[in-house]
Amino acid sequence: MRNIVLEISYDGTNYSGWQIQKNKTTVQGVLTQELSSLLQEEIHLTGSGRTDAGVSAVKQVANFTTTNNISCKEVAGRLNAVLPKSIRVLHAYETDEQFNSRFSAKKKTYAYNFYLSKTAIPYLDIFATQFKQNVNMSIFANELKNIIGEHDFTSFCASNTSVKSMERKIYSAELLKNGEVYTVIICGNGFLYNMIRIIIGTLIDISCGKLSNDIMKILELKDRNCAGFTAGAKGLVLLNVEY
Amino acid sequence: MRNIVLEISYDGTNYSGWQIQKNKTTVQGVLTQELSSLLQEEIHLTGSGRTDAGVSAVKQVANFTTTNNISCKEVAGRLNAVLPKSIRVLHAYETDEQFNSRFSAKKKTYAYNFYLSKTAIPYLDIFATQFKQNVNMSIFANELKNIIGEHDFTSFCASNTSVKSMERKIYSAELLKNGEVYTVIICGNGFLYNMIRIIIGTLIDISCGKLSNDIMKILELKDRNCAGFTAGAKGLVLLNVEY
Repeated sequence: MRNIVLEISYDGTNYSGWQIQKNKTTVQGVLTQELSSLLQEEIHLTGSGRTDAGVSAVKQVANFTTTNNISCKEVAGRLNAVLPKSIRVLHAYETDEQFNSRFSAKKKTYAYNFYLSKTAIPYLDIFATQFKQNVNMSIFANELKNIIGEHDFTSFCASNTSVKSMERKIYSAELLKNGEVYTVIICGNGFLYNMIRIIIGTLIDISCGKLSNDIMKILELKDRNCAGFTAGAKGLVLLNVEY
Repeated sequence: MRNIVLEISYDGTNYSGWQIQKNKTTVQGVLTQELSSLLQEEIHLTGSGRTDAGVSAVKQVANFTTTNNISCKEVAGRLNAVLPKSIRVLHAYETDEQFNSRFSAKKKTYAYNFYLSKTAIPYLDIFATQFKQNVNMSIFANELKNIIGEHDFTSFCASNTSVKSMERKIYSAELLKNGEVYTVIICGNGFLYNMIRIIIGTLIDISCGKLSNDIMKILELKDRNCAGFTAGAKGLVLLNVEY
Protein backbone atom coordinates (compact mmCIF):
# COMPACT_ATOMS: atom_id res chain seq x y z
CA MET A 1 0.00 0.00 0.00
CA ARG A 2 1.18 3.54 -0.74
CA ASN A 3 0.93 6.06 2.09
CA ILE A 4 0.25 9.55 0.76
CA VAL A 5 0.53 12.75 2.81
CA LEU A 6 -1.44 15.90 2.00
CA GLU A 7 -0.54 19.34 3.30
CA ILE A 8 -3.80 21.24 3.32
CA SER A 9 -4.81 24.85 3.88
CA TYR A 10 -8.37 25.96 4.60
CA ASP A 11 -10.56 28.87 5.58
CA GLY A 12 -12.70 27.19 8.24
CA THR A 13 -15.25 30.03 8.48
CA ASN A 14 -18.05 28.15 6.76
CA TYR A 15 -17.19 24.58 7.80
CA SER A 16 -18.43 22.57 10.79
CA GLY A 17 -14.80 21.87 11.65
CA TRP A 18 -12.35 19.28 10.37
CA GLN A 19 -13.94 16.02 11.44
CA ILE A 20 -16.34 14.17 9.16
CA GLN A 21 -19.95 14.32 10.42
CA LYS A 22 -23.27 13.24 8.95
CA ASN A 23 -25.24 16.03 7.30
CA LYS A 24 -22.58 18.64 8.01
CA THR A 25 -20.04 20.19 5.69
CA THR A 26 -16.61 19.49 7.15
CA VAL A 27 -13.11 19.78 5.69
CA GLN A 28 -12.33 16.08 6.18
CA GLY A 29 -15.73 15.23 4.69
CA VAL A 30 -15.20 17.30 1.54
CA LEU A 31 -11.62 16.02 1.07
CA THR A 32 -12.62 12.37 1.63
CA GLN A 33 -15.43 12.64 -0.88
CA GLU A 34 -13.24 14.20 -3.58
CA LEU A 35 -10.36 11.77 -2.95
CA SER A 36 -12.68 8.74 -3.06
CA SER A 37 -14.22 10.02 -6.26
CA LEU A 38 -10.78 10.72 -7.79
CA LEU A 39 -9.28 7.33 -6.86
CA GLN A 40 -12.49 5.36 -7.31
CA GLU A 41 -12.16 3.68 -3.93
CA GLU A 42 -13.24 4.36 -0.37
CA ILE A 43 -10.54 6.57 1.17
CA HIS A 44 -9.93 6.97 4.91
CA LEU A 45 -8.20 10.25 5.54
CA THR A 46 -6.35 10.69 8.86
CA GLY A 47 -5.75 14.28 9.98
CA SER A 48 -3.12 15.48 12.48
CA GLY A 49 -6.02 16.43 14.73
CA ARG A 50 -9.46 18.00 14.64
CA THR A 51 -10.04 21.69 14.29
CA ASP A 52 -13.32 23.09 15.67
CA ALA A 53 -16.10 24.68 13.64
CA GLY A 54 -14.88 28.03 12.33
CA VAL A 55 -11.19 27.30 12.91
CA SER A 56 -8.85 27.70 9.90
CA ALA A 57 -5.53 26.14 8.98
CA VAL A 58 -2.56 27.62 7.17
CA LYS A 59 -1.11 24.10 7.19
CA GLN A 60 -2.96 20.97 8.30
CA VAL A 61 -1.48 17.54 7.55
CA ALA A 62 -3.43 14.39 6.64
CA ASN A 63 -2.60 11.01 5.11
CA PHE A 64 -4.35 8.09 3.39
CA THR A 65 -3.35 4.75 1.92
CA THR A 66 -4.13 3.58 -1.59
CA THR A 67 -3.03 0.99 -4.15
CA ASN A 68 -3.68 3.46 -6.98
CA ASN A 69 -0.45 4.44 -8.78
CA ILE A 70 -1.49 8.04 -9.53
CA SER A 71 1.39 10.51 -9.08
CA CYS A 72 1.34 12.73 -6.00
CA LYS A 73 1.50 15.82 -8.20
CA GLU A 74 -1.64 14.65 -9.98
CA VAL A 75 -3.43 14.03 -6.65
CA ALA A 76 -2.75 17.65 -5.61
CA GLY A 77 -3.57 19.14 -9.02
CA ARG A 78 -6.78 17.19 -9.58
CA LEU A 79 -8.02 17.79 -6.04
CA ASN A 80 -7.42 21.55 -6.36
CA ALA A 81 -9.37 21.52 -9.63
CA VAL A 82 -12.51 20.19 -7.92
CA LEU A 83 -12.22 21.43 -4.32
CA PRO A 84 -13.94 24.65 -3.24
CA LYS A 85 -11.58 27.66 -3.13
CA SER A 86 -11.77 27.56 0.68
CA ILE A 87 -9.71 24.32 0.72
CA ARG A 88 -6.35 23.99 -1.08
CA VAL A 89 -3.86 21.14 -1.22
CA LEU A 90 -0.46 22.83 -0.84
CA HIS A 91 1.61 19.70 -1.36
CA ALA A 92 1.23 15.92 -1.69
CA TYR A 93 4.03 13.37 -1.20
CA GLU A 94 4.51 9.69 -0.55
CA THR A 95 6.01 8.45 2.70
CA ASP A 96 6.76 5.24 4.59
CA GLU A 97 3.94 2.94 5.70
CA GLN A 98 4.45 3.70 9.41
CA PHE A 99 3.67 7.40 9.08
CA ASN A 100 0.39 8.46 10.73
CA SER A 101 -0.56 12.16 10.59
CA ARG A 102 -2.02 12.02 14.08
CA PHE A 103 0.34 9.79 16.05
CA SER A 104 3.57 10.80 14.33
CA ALA A 105 3.05 14.54 14.99
CA LYS A 106 5.82 16.02 17.16
CA LYS A 107 4.89 19.72 17.30
CA LYS A 108 1.87 21.83 16.47
CA THR A 109 1.75 25.61 16.22
CA TYR A 110 -1.44 27.62 16.54
CA ALA A 111 -2.12 31.35 16.31
CA TYR A 112 -4.97 33.14 18.05
CA ASN A 113 -5.92 36.61 16.75
CA PHE A 114 -7.91 39.10 18.79
CA TYR A 115 -8.54 42.80 19.29
CA LEU A 116 -9.79 44.90 22.18
CA SER A 117 -12.68 47.25 21.46
CA LYS A 118 -16.08 48.13 22.85
CA THR A 119 -17.39 48.44 19.27
CA ALA A 120 -16.92 45.72 16.66
CA ILE A 121 -14.37 46.49 13.92
CA PRO A 122 -15.86 44.68 10.89
CA TYR A 123 -12.58 44.30 8.99
CA LEU A 124 -10.93 42.63 12.00
CA ASP A 125 -14.00 40.44 12.59
CA ILE A 126 -13.08 38.55 9.42
CA PHE A 127 -10.16 36.85 11.15
CA ALA A 128 -9.99 37.96 14.79
CA THR A 129 -12.11 37.72 17.94
CA GLN A 130 -13.30 40.92 19.64
CA PHE A 131 -12.93 41.23 23.42
CA LYS A 132 -14.83 44.09 25.08
CA GLN A 133 -13.17 43.67 28.47
CA ASN A 134 -10.73 46.26 29.88
CA VAL A 135 -7.66 44.10 29.47
CA ASN A 136 -4.24 44.96 30.90
CA MET A 137 -2.01 43.59 28.15
CA SER A 138 1.17 43.65 30.23
CA ILE A 139 -0.47 41.26 32.71
CA PHE A 140 -1.63 39.17 29.72
CA ALA A 141 1.90 39.02 28.27
CA ASN A 142 3.49 38.08 31.61
CA GLU A 143 0.93 35.39 32.42
CA LEU A 144 1.16 33.93 28.89
CA LYS A 145 4.81 32.97 29.57
CA ASN A 146 3.70 30.79 32.47
CA ILE A 147 2.07 28.22 30.19
CA ILE A 148 5.51 27.38 28.70
CA GLY A 149 6.88 24.03 29.91
CA GLU A 150 5.43 20.64 30.73
CA HIS A 151 2.19 20.82 32.70
CA ASP A 152 -0.99 18.93 33.48
CA PHE A 153 -3.53 21.01 31.53
CA THR A 154 -6.71 19.54 33.13
CA SER A 155 -7.90 23.08 33.99
CA PHE A 156 -7.56 24.05 30.32
CA CYS A 157 -9.45 21.16 28.77
CA ALA A 158 -13.16 21.06 27.88
CA SER A 159 -14.81 18.75 30.40
CA ASN A 160 -16.37 16.43 27.79
CA THR A 161 -13.13 14.68 26.87
CA SER A 162 -11.69 11.23 27.54
CA VAL A 163 -7.97 11.38 26.78
CA LYS A 164 -5.49 9.26 28.71
CA SER A 165 -3.03 11.95 29.73
CA MET A 166 -3.56 15.64 30.45
CA GLU A 167 0.19 16.33 30.30
CA ARG A 168 1.29 18.51 27.42
CA LYS A 169 4.53 20.34 26.75
CA ILE A 170 4.44 23.93 25.50
CA TYR A 171 7.67 24.90 23.73
CA SER A 172 6.90 28.56 23.15
CA ALA A 173 4.16 31.14 23.63
CA GLU A 174 4.58 34.60 22.13
CA LEU A 175 2.46 37.71 21.91
CA LEU A 176 2.72 39.86 18.76
CA LYS A 177 0.95 43.08 17.84
CA ASN A 178 0.18 44.35 14.37
CA GLY A 179 -1.92 47.50 14.38
CA GLU A 180 -5.00 46.79 16.48
CA VAL A 181 -4.56 43.02 16.26
CA TYR A 182 -2.88 40.91 18.93
CA THR A 183 -1.66 37.46 17.89
CA VAL A 184 -0.72 34.76 20.37
CA ILE A 185 1.46 32.05 18.82
CA ILE A 186 1.69 28.81 20.80
CA CYS A 187 3.81 25.80 19.90
CA GLY A 188 3.47 22.53 21.80
CA ASN A 189 3.73 18.76 21.48
CA GLY A 190 -0.07 18.53 21.41
CA PHE A 191 -3.20 20.26 22.65
CA LEU A 192 -6.26 19.06 24.57
CA TYR A 193 -9.81 19.73 23.42
CA ASN A 194 -10.41 23.52 23.39
CA MET A 195 -7.11 24.03 25.21
CA ILE A 196 -5.91 27.12 23.34
CA ARG A 197 -9.33 28.78 23.42
CA ILE A 198 -9.53 28.19 27.20
CA ILE A 199 -5.97 29.50 27.68
CA ILE A 200 -6.92 32.71 25.82
CA GLY A 201 -10.21 33.12 27.71
CA THR A 202 -8.39 32.58 31.02
CA LEU A 203 -5.67 35.10 30.14
CA ILE A 204 -8.38 37.65 29.29
CA ASP A 205 -10.21 36.95 32.58
CA ILE A 206 -6.99 37.26 34.60
CA SER A 207 -5.90 40.43 32.77
CA CYS A 208 -9.20 42.22 33.28
CA GLY A 209 -9.30 41.29 36.97
CA LYS A 210 -12.20 38.85 36.74
CA LEU A 211 -10.10 35.88 37.91
CA SER A 212 -7.89 36.31 40.96
CA ASN A 213 -5.90 33.07 40.51
CA ASP A 214 -2.95 33.28 38.13
CA ILE A 215 -1.98 30.72 35.46
CA MET A 216 0.38 28.78 37.76
CA LYS A 217 -2.33 28.45 40.41
CA ILE A 218 -4.97 27.44 37.87
CA LEU A 219 -2.65 24.76 36.41
CA GLU A 220 -2.07 23.47 39.95
CA LEU A 221 -5.80 23.27 40.75
CA LYS A 222 -6.48 20.84 37.84
CA ASP A 223 -10.10 21.95 37.61
CA ARG A 224 -11.78 23.35 34.49
CA ASN A 225 -14.08 25.46 36.69
CA CYS A 226 -11.11 27.44 38.01
CA ALA A 227 -10.09 28.62 34.51
CA GLY A 228 -11.76 31.27 32.35
CA PHE A 229 -14.21 31.18 29.46
CA THR A 230 -13.62 29.42 26.13
CA ALA A 231 -12.63 32.19 23.66
CA GLY A 232 -14.40 32.22 20.27
CA ALA A 233 -13.24 29.88 17.50
CA LYS A 234 -12.83 32.59 14.86
CA GLY A 235 -9.44 33.86 16.02
CA LEU A 236 -7.87 30.40 16.02
CA VAL A 237 -5.68 29.09 13.18
CA LEU A 238 -3.54 25.98 12.93
CA LEU A 239 -0.26 27.29 11.50
CA ASN A 240 1.91 24.20 11.26
CA VAL A 241 2.33 20.53 12.19
CA GLU A 242 5.86 19.16 12.48
CA TYR A 243 6.98 15.51 12.36
CA MET B 1 -26.07 74.13 11.40
CA ARG B 2 -24.42 71.38 13.47
CA ASN B 3 -21.41 69.63 11.91
CA ILE B 4 -21.24 65.99 13.02
CA VAL B 5 -18.24 63.71 12.51
CA LEU B 6 -18.53 59.94 12.25
CA GLU B 7 -15.62 57.55 12.74
CA ILE B 8 -16.56 54.48 10.74
CA SER B 9 -15.14 51.00 10.37
CA TYR B 10 -16.07 48.61 7.56
CA ASP B 11 -15.30 45.31 5.92
CA GLY B 12 -15.26 46.40 2.28
CA THR B 13 -15.24 42.85 0.83
CA ASN B 14 -18.81 42.95 -0.44
CA TYR B 15 -19.12 46.68 -1.24
CA SER B 16 -18.49 48.53 -4.49
CA GLY B 17 -16.19 50.87 -2.59
CA TRP B 18 -16.91 53.95 -0.48
CA GLN B 19 -18.41 56.36 -3.00
CA ILE B 20 -22.14 56.49 -3.61
CA GLN B 21 -23.09 55.08 -7.02
CA LYS B 22 -26.41 54.32 -8.68
CA ASN B 23 -27.51 50.66 -8.46
CA LYS B 24 -24.43 49.65 -6.47
CA THR B 25 -24.07 48.91 -2.78
CA THR B 26 -21.46 51.29 -1.40
CA VAL B 27 -20.49 52.24 2.15
CA GLN B 28 -21.31 55.93 1.65
CA GLY B 29 -24.59 54.93 0.00
CA VAL B 30 -25.70 52.68 2.88
CA LEU B 31 -24.66 55.27 5.51
CA THR B 32 -26.34 58.17 3.68
CA GLN B 33 -29.58 56.23 3.37
CA GLU B 34 -29.67 55.24 7.06
CA LEU B 35 -28.71 58.75 8.21
CA SER B 36 -31.34 60.40 6.00
CA SER B 37 -33.95 57.99 7.28
CA LEU B 38 -32.90 58.53 10.92
CA LEU B 39 -32.86 62.33 10.69
CA GLN B 40 -35.79 62.63 8.27
CA GLU B 41 -33.86 64.90 5.95
CA GLU B 42 -31.57 64.58 2.95
CA ILE B 43 -28.05 64.10 4.33
CA HIS B 44 -24.85 64.75 2.38
CA LEU B 45 -22.05 62.72 3.88
CA THR B 46 -18.45 63.79 3.11
CA GLY B 47 -15.78 61.12 3.53
CA SER B 48 -12.04 61.71 4.02
CA GLY B 49 -11.57 60.06 0.63
CA ARG B 50 -12.79 57.18 -1.49
CA THR B 51 -11.79 53.61 -0.91
CA ASP B 52 -11.97 51.26 -3.92
CA ALA B 53 -14.27 48.25 -4.28
CA GLY B 54 -13.13 45.56 -1.84
CA VAL B 55 -11.02 47.90 0.29
CA SER B 56 -11.75 47.96 4.03
CA ALA B 57 -11.29 50.58 6.73
CA VAL B 58 -10.36 50.18 10.37
CA LYS B 59 -11.07 53.91 10.70
CA GLN B 60 -12.61 56.08 8.02
CA VAL B 61 -13.84 59.59 8.89
CA ALA B 62 -16.90 61.34 7.45
CA ASN B 63 -19.01 64.36 8.38
CA PHE B 64 -22.45 65.84 7.66
CA THR B 65 -24.41 68.90 8.67
CA THR B 66 -27.88 68.93 10.18
CA THR B 67 -30.24 71.15 12.17
CA ASN B 68 -31.60 68.13 14.05
CA ASN B 69 -30.74 68.29 17.77
CA ILE B 70 -30.29 64.54 18.24
CA SER B 71 -27.35 63.68 20.53
CA CYS B 72 -24.19 62.31 18.90
CA LYS B 73 -24.37 59.22 21.09
CA GLU B 74 -27.86 58.55 19.74
CA VAL B 75 -26.68 58.99 16.15
CA ALA B 76 -24.01 56.30 16.67
CA GLY B 77 -26.26 53.94 18.62
CA ARG B 78 -29.24 54.18 16.28
CA LEU B 79 -27.10 53.82 13.16
CA ASN B 80 -25.40 50.72 14.57
CA ALA B 81 -28.82 49.24 15.32
CA VAL B 82 -29.86 49.40 11.65
CA LEU B 83 -26.55 49.16 9.74
CA PRO B 84 -25.32 45.80 8.42
CA LYS B 85 -22.67 44.19 10.68
CA SER B 86 -20.07 44.96 8.01
CA ILE B 87 -20.31 48.72 8.81
CA ARG B 88 -19.95 50.09 12.36
CA VAL B 89 -19.92 53.64 13.68
CA LEU B 90 -17.09 53.69 16.23
CA HIS B 91 -17.70 57.22 17.43
CA ALA B 92 -19.77 60.33 16.60
CA TYR B 93 -18.98 63.84 17.78
CA GLU B 94 -19.84 67.46 16.99
CA THR B 95 -17.20 69.83 15.68
CA ASP B 96 -16.80 73.36 14.33
CA GLU B 97 -18.52 74.39 11.07
CA GLN B 98 -15.23 74.70 9.16
CA PHE B 99 -14.29 71.03 9.53
CA ASN B 100 -14.41 69.03 6.31
CA SER B 101 -13.44 65.33 6.46
CA ARG B 102 -11.75 65.54 3.08
CA PHE B 103 -10.03 68.91 3.02
CA SER B 104 -9.08 69.06 6.71
CA ALA B 105 -7.28 65.68 6.64
CA LYS B 106 -3.57 66.01 7.51
CA LYS B 107 -2.40 62.38 7.48
CA LYS B 108 -3.71 59.06 6.28
CA THR B 109 -2.35 55.64 7.12
CA TYR B 110 -2.98 52.56 5.02
CA ALA B 111 -1.92 48.93 5.42
CA TYR B 112 -1.43 46.48 2.57
CA ASN B 113 -1.41 42.75 3.45
CA PHE B 114 0.06 40.11 1.16
CA TYR B 115 1.68 36.69 1.12
CA LEU B 116 4.01 34.88 -1.26
CA SER B 117 2.92 31.43 -2.42
CA LYS B 118 2.46 29.46 -5.61
CA THR B 119 -0.71 27.92 -4.13
CA ALA B 120 -3.50 29.99 -2.62
CA ILE B 121 -3.76 29.86 1.19
CA PRO B 122 -7.53 30.20 1.76
CA TYR B 123 -7.29 31.54 5.31
CA LEU B 124 -4.96 34.33 4.18
CA ASP B 125 -7.12 35.06 1.12
CA ILE B 126 -9.73 36.47 3.50
CA PHE B 127 -7.63 39.59 4.13
CA ALA B 128 -4.43 39.41 2.06
CA THR B 129 -3.40 39.35 -1.61
CA GLN B 130 -1.44 36.37 -2.93
CA PHE B 131 1.64 37.02 -5.09
CA LYS B 132 3.02 34.02 -6.99
CA GLN B 133 6.20 35.79 -8.09
CA ASN B 134 9.64 34.84 -6.74
CA VAL B 135 10.09 37.97 -4.70
CA ASN B 136 13.34 38.97 -3.00
CA MET B 137 11.97 40.58 0.15
CA SER B 138 15.22 42.31 1.11
CA ILE B 139 15.10 44.22 -2.20
CA PHE B 140 11.42 44.94 -1.49
CA ALA B 141 12.21 46.30 2.00
CA ASN B 142 15.08 48.49 0.75
CA GLU B 143 13.13 49.92 -2.18
CA LEU B 144 10.08 50.60 0.01
CA LYS B 145 12.11 53.15 2.03
CA ASN B 146 12.69 55.18 -1.13
CA ILE B 147 9.07 56.29 -1.33
CA ILE B 148 9.48 58.18 1.97
CA GLY B 149 9.67 61.96 1.49
CA GLU B 150 8.04 64.52 -0.78
CA HIS B 151 7.78 63.35 -4.39
CA ASP B 152 5.81 63.80 -7.59
CA PHE B 153 3.92 60.50 -7.72
CA THR B 154 2.72 60.75 -11.36
CA SER B 155 4.23 57.30 -12.08
CA PHE B 156 2.16 55.84 -9.23
CA CYS B 157 -1.22 57.27 -10.15
CA ALA B 158 -3.92 55.58 -12.24
CA SER B 159 -3.98 57.42 -15.57
CA ASN B 160 -7.70 58.25 -15.43
CA THR B 161 -7.37 60.99 -12.86
CA SER B 162 -7.59 64.78 -12.93
CA VAL B 163 -6.09 66.11 -9.71
CA LYS B 164 -4.23 69.40 -9.62
CA SER B 165 -0.99 68.32 -8.00
CA MET B 166 0.81 65.00 -8.12
CA GLU B 167 3.02 65.98 -5.17
CA ARG B 168 2.47 63.94 -2.02
CA LYS B 169 4.52 63.59 1.12
CA ILE B 170 5.12 60.14 2.60
CA TYR B 171 5.98 60.31 6.31
CA SER B 172 6.70 56.64 6.89
CA ALA B 173 6.69 53.29 5.10
CA GLU B 174 7.31 50.11 7.10
CA LEU B 175 7.33 46.41 6.33
CA LEU B 176 6.11 44.01 9.03
CA LYS B 177 5.87 40.23 8.98
CA ASN B 178 3.48 38.08 11.00
CA GLY B 179 3.73 34.40 10.11
CA GLU B 180 3.27 34.14 6.35
CA VAL B 181 1.75 37.60 6.05
CA TYR B 182 3.67 40.71 5.07
CA THR B 183 2.09 44.06 5.94
CA VAL B 184 3.25 47.35 4.45
CA ILE B 185 2.13 50.36 6.49
CA ILE B 186 2.30 53.70 4.72
CA CYS B 187 1.50 57.09 6.22
CA GLY B 188 1.29 60.19 4.06
CA ASN B 189 -0.41 63.57 3.71
CA GLY B 190 -2.61 62.12 0.96
CA PHE B 191 -2.67 59.51 -1.78
CA LEU B 192 -3.43 59.64 -5.49
CA TYR B 193 -5.88 57.29 -7.19
CA ASN B 194 -4.62 53.68 -6.81
CA MET B 195 -1.29 55.04 -5.53
CA ILE B 196 -0.67 52.45 -2.80
CA ARG B 197 -1.76 49.53 -5.00
CA ILE B 198 0.62 50.72 -7.76
CA ILE B 199 3.45 51.19 -5.23
CA ILE B 200 2.96 47.58 -4.04
CA GLY B 201 2.73 46.19 -7.59
CA THR B 202 5.88 48.12 -8.56
CA LEU B 203 7.81 46.89 -5.52
CA ILE B 204 6.80 43.30 -6.39
CA ASP B 205 7.90 43.81 -10.03
CA ILE B 206 11.24 45.32 -8.97
CA SER B 207 11.86 42.63 -6.33
CA CYS B 208 11.22 39.73 -8.70
CA GLY B 209 13.44 41.27 -11.40
CA LYS B 210 10.65 42.12 -13.82
CA LEU B 211 11.37 45.87 -13.67
CA SER B 212 14.93 47.06 -13.99
CA ASN B 213 14.32 50.66 -12.92
CA ASP B 214 14.27 51.27 -9.17
CA ILE B 215 11.76 53.40 -7.22
CA MET B 216 13.86 56.59 -7.43
CA LYS B 217 14.19 56.26 -11.19
CA ILE B 218 10.48 55.49 -11.65
CA LEU B 219 9.53 58.54 -9.55
CA GLU B 220 11.84 60.66 -11.72
CA LEU B 221 10.34 59.39 -14.99
CA LYS B 222 6.81 60.66 -14.03
CA ASP B 223 5.16 58.08 -16.27
CA ARG B 224 2.59 55.50 -15.14
CA ASN B 225 3.86 53.11 -17.85
CA CYS B 226 7.25 52.89 -16.16
CA ALA B 227 5.79 51.59 -12.90
CA GLY B 228 4.45 48.10 -12.17
CA PHE B 229 0.99 46.54 -12.04
CA THR B 230 -1.84 47.66 -9.76
CA ALA B 231 -1.91 45.16 -6.88
CA GLY B 232 -5.31 43.68 -5.92
CA ALA B 233 -7.69 45.66 -3.70
CA LYS B 234 -8.23 42.92 -1.12
CA GLY B 235 -5.02 43.51 0.82
CA LEU B 236 -5.64 47.23 1.27
CA VAL B 237 -7.08 48.76 4.46
CA LEU B 238 -7.43 52.38 5.54
CA LEU B 239 -6.13 52.33 9.12
CA ASN B 240 -6.46 55.93 10.21
CA VAL B 241 -7.13 59.53 9.17
CA GLU B 242 -5.62 62.31 11.25
CA TYR B 243 -6.64 65.99 11.38
